[in-house]
Amino acid sequence: MNKEVTIYDIAEQLNISASTVSRALNDHPAINEKTKKKINQTASELGYRSNLFAKNLRAKSTMTLGVMVPKLDSYFLATVLAGMEKEANQSGYNLLIAQSLDSPKKEIANAKTMFNSRVDGLLVSTLLSIEEIGHFEPFLRKGIPILFFDRVLDVKKIPKIVIDNFQAGYDATAHLIEQGCKKIFHFTGDLGWNVYRDRYHGYLKALADANVSYNEDMLFVTNLSLEASSEVSQQIAELDDKPDGFFVTNDTCAASLMVSLKKEGIRVPGDIAIIGFNDDPITRIVEPRLSTVHYPGEEMGELAARSLISHLKGDSNVQLTNTIVLSHELIPRGSTTRFKEV
Amino acid sequence: MNKEVTIYDIAEQLNISASTVSRALNDHPAINEKTKKKINQTASELGYRSNLFAKNLRAKSTMTLGVMVPKLDSYFLATVLAGMEKEANQSGYNLLIAQSLDSPKKEIANAKTMFNSRVDGLLVSTLLSIEEIGHFEPFLRKGIPILFFDRVLDVKKIPKIVIDNFQAGYDATAHLIEQGCKKIFHFTGDLGWNVYRDRYHGYLKALADANVSYNEDMLFVTNLSLEASSEVSQQIAELDDKPDGFFVTNDTCAASLMVSLKKEGIRVPGDIAIIGFNDDPITRIVEPRLSTVHYPGEEMGELAARSLISHLKGDSNVQLTNTIVLSHELIPRGSTTRFKEV
Repeated sequence: MNKEVTIYDIAEQLNISASTVSRALNDHPAINEKTKKKINQTASELGYRSNLFAKNLRAKSTMTLGVMVPKLDSYFLATVLAGMEKEANQSGYNLLIAQSLDSPKKEIANAKTMFNSRVDGLLVSTLLSIEEIGHFEPFLRKGIPILFFDRVLDVKKIPKIVIDNFQAGYDATAHLIEQGCKKIFHFTGDLGWNVYRDRYHGYLKALADANVSYNEDMLFVTNLSLEASSEVSQQIAELDDKPDGFFVTNDTCAASLMVSLKKEGIRVPGDIAIIGFNDDPITRIVEPRLSTVHYPGEEMGELAARSLISHLKGDSNVQLTNTIVLSHELIPRGSTTRFKEV
Repeated sequence: MNKEVTIYDIAEQLNISASTVSRALNDHPAINEKTKKKINQTASELGYRSNLFAKNLRAKSTMTLGVMVPKLDSYFLATVLAGMEKEANQSGYNLLIAQSLDSPKKEIANAKTMFNSRVDGLLVSTLLSIEEIGHFEPFLRKGIPILFFDRVLDVKKIPKIVIDNFQAGYDATAHLIEQGCKKIFHFTGDLGWNVYRDRYHGYLKALADANVSYNEDMLFVTNLSLEASSEVSQQIAELDDKPDGFFVTNDTCAASLMVSLKKEGIRVPGDIAIIGFNDDPITRIVEPRLSTVHYPGEEMGELAARSLISHLKGDSNVQLTNTIVLSHELIPRGSTTRFKEV
């Protein structure tokens, strides 16, 4: 392995003093532009990497934001990241992204990697519970701001950006009730996560408000895989007393469930009306088109990055904010339209 | 901002020598386990970040691999990343991911961020052309290995992992010809990229080998968005002399095109047979199910990470390899089955 290039190597190469090199690399006004250009060019040629550490101060930023997410396999997260990149680009920041693949251990390792990469701030959709978030403390102690989005926790000094998942779950369920559904099942993920838990509570409240009955057999908690959708579909096909409505916590599972049910000879929305969540492109590809709740992913990403950057620039103190709630929107489509006049 | 914590701070806190702290943090055998544990705990409490730079040698690795990709919005890339994470986890590496959002300027900025984050190695699906890859030179000069996957270039010392896109394009087109198609259109992305260019050349060769005619009106080069699929569909609907087959370079566009064409009253596969590419889950959700070419994304990710890690461990020299070609597989399904007996 090569030795790390230092300012002394650059100085030697150009036959100037190391302090001139140091000041040039830090854009000091005492050094003229021509010299700066020459020094920067040589630094680049030699493969010099700015040594923030040696200064013993976080005076200079790395212009890097860390983003920690559960899994990079959803359209929703792709839109959030696109929104973040858009804002970051405008302010000259780059994003470093890490996924925890639904492993708490990996989320903790990723936090360490982000910390050692000296990110200026951190945007996190977390897997962990409030008791397990010691991995964020080193950031807070150093004054590196953190912001939670989507999957969030209530932690002091860590603001969060969310949608009102309770209300969104309520709205989706109330829509099915309006369409005449009287036996509405719910297909969701791990209820330990705020997003699924809140939607589930919204679903329960909507049923209760309309005096629609509920029991635990109507709830399917799965890992939200395509295989899970097939299994749920098979269980429904075998039921004597079938549901007439289904609120599914994401569009991929909803679309897959719809296709599986149709193969079993069940009509959608005639026999069972189905509503999904997120407003992914797949909702417009399946037949009938899938009703859903629009989740403003790109806006969430933009706002999250903008808030953090504004804090880093000293324009505002993001840590004074507790929660920002974005608007969701019910999108009724063919998969729930049981009456001509809605 | 706080001052950066040094080994001297840890030494002072524990009332021991800085050299003991340094050796403990580097897992030196001369320091006993109990002391190491205590020092590591204090380091963590104080928010110490290992100062690789001060050693002026890349003797210690950061256990981090950088991954640079065009855009994190495809199922294919999600599977590649899952494969990489799987291998990386097994060897104690973490991944840092950056997306270029189809911007060459951003790819260059991302390379700089990765370099400054001191990644041990780099896995790249590149946007750029052979003339523009100066941003990788600092890595090569430092002996930091790079490996290209999927979107690759021919560069000395940078091995690549690909599928045979030419043969895959040939196979998809030959399959349509076997199904009786005589007028086969091609819907693809920017032909400057090896993946799309090679598939296109495979398509042309299959047509030529079977004496099926071709002209430029049969080629649709788009940005591969859902909007592009709708536009192509509209153009097809207005044509007097319609195609009877379509080879589409990804499944999302193929599925979306199929749904749009069906809405125009065109039967699939009766009027037009359609084959996609990648074998995304959407192929099994649309009706009819979409024929495609299976692209082994997870295997590609695993192999890429494994090759790089093996190089870093000194078990093998990845730079002696030029190209690794993975196997693809034609998956015929309902969207191209025009004869009962295939």
